[in-house]
Amino acid sequence: MTRYKITLSYDGSNFAGFQVQPNLRTVQGEIERALSYINQQRKTTFVAAGRTDRKVHAKGQVGHCDFHIEIPPYKLKRAINSNTDDDLYVVHVEKVDERFHARFSKHKKTYIYRINLGEYQPMERNYIYQYNHNLDVESMQKAISFLLGTHDFRAFVSENEEKENCIRTIYQASITRSLENPNILQILFEGNGFLKYQIRNMVGYLIKVGEKKVSPDEIQQVLTSKDRTKAGKRAPAQGLCLEKIEYVEEI
Amino acid sequence: MTRYKITLSYDGSNFAGFQVQPNLRTVQGEIERALSYINQQRKTTFVAAGRTDRKVHAKGQVGHCDFHIEIPPYKLKRAINSNTDDDLYVVHVEKVDERFHARFSKHKKTYIYRINLGEYQPMERNYIYQYNHNLDVESMQKAISFLLGTHDFRAFVSENEEKENCIRTIYQASITRSLENPNILQILFEGNGFLKYQIRNMVGYLIKVGEKKVSPDEIQQVLTSKDRTKAGKRAPAQGLCLEKIEYVEEI
Repeated sequence: MTRYKITLSYDGSNFAGFQVQPNLRTVQGEIERALSYINQQRKTTFVAAGRTDRKVHAKGQVGHCDFHIEIPPYKLKRAINSNTDDDLYVVHVEKVDERFHARFSKHKKTYIYRINLGEYQPMERNYIYQYNHNLDVESMQKAISFLLGTHDFRAFVSENEEKENCIRTIYQASITRSLENPNILQILFEGNGFLKYQIRNMVGYLIKVGEKKVSPDEIQQVLTSKDRTKAGKRAPAQGLCLEKIEYVEEI
Repeated sequence: MTRYKITLSYDGSNFAGFQVQPNLRTVQGEIERALSYINQQRKTTFVAAGRTDRKVHAKGQVGHCDFHIEIPPYKLKRAINSNTDDDLYVVHVEKVDERFHARFSKHKKTYIYRINLGEYQPMERNYIYQYNHNLDVESMQKAISFLLGTHDFRAFVSENEEKENCIRTIYQASITRSLENPNILQILFEGNGFLKYQIRNMVGYLIKVGEKKVSPDEIQQVLTSKDRTKAGKRAPAQGLCLEKIEYVEEI
């Protein structure tokens, strides 16, 4: 048995989310179809570091799979890419030790949420949230700094999230303007893991700060309240992209 | 009668080109449908500065139309935008003198052709040509400078182009790397007008230069040959975007 670590990018627009679902085109479904075909028609599971929501994109999603046969990584990369559509692309394949596990091996994830404060732009509509109004970016920058570090993020998770433990660590959180187009905000989060809807709910609250509906330091009270009703409106999925996943110890 | 100058942006991906065609969704067809509805159901023609090819995008296409009724420009903008799909957007509307003609009034057009020299990126596939190999950009920069000025561009036009006069002037031509991602080349052309496939054929030849299949100064011989078979392969449509149109004398 050979374990492969696979890094993939995808345009989430035309997938019904990440996780396999019967009769729906999903990222996991597509990649497993290709993997199983290459692995001599044996059903092959792709274990991802985590799911992404419907319409969310990835430049560096990571998963692993086990093969009965051994194929040089560059050939496996080519084989997957010639068996998938053009909205999903394998960036990298490597052989890893069987102790490597995409979900359980220690890692950090980087997400960027993009917002267009300028005029509506049709070409960006599936990749950048078309907010199309101005925001007080300085206040948002003050607010985001309160999210840094280890917190119980219960106030920002999905109502349906069943997880007992909502304690996560955010190593980096920043808001910058695109060099190419200063109307585009890039909200970056790097952390040891994110809960369902956590980033989109945090961004939703940051937008409320930018609209001056709440002051920047009120985000602290939301955090400590652990009350899911306080975070407000969730930001739409299409602005979010999983940029990269870095494993702390590569095996 | 009131004449309006309309600036619009569109994502060309899901249109069967610009020009009205029966039973096909085109940019002109969509905008005329909205205009005619707003203009009290009278058939209203949208006269564009020029057509764009199928799959080509625009950030600043310009056209004019004549209305039987008079509407404040900001209201007309809002009315068109609420009667079109999200891949077409009116950026600006203004009332103009009846002597203004989107095609015949003197103007200059700016196009940018984008190429990704780095790894395939699914999210860019409809907006940036996924060349995915390196190119000798310095040689391309040398070659593009020979296109500046007034020339007979017959060698670079479509085989089906019937135009007698292929003399056009290019005021600006440059190749820069994106500030956000240096693997993305931006080939900019500003000129008094471009013929069918001219930019895509010029870019195709510049790519040949970047591949070192021809030397940068051979582009001069192609120009002077006026021979359509010499230009080589046309670059794909989706990398091209009509960035803006500036009228020399606004009326």
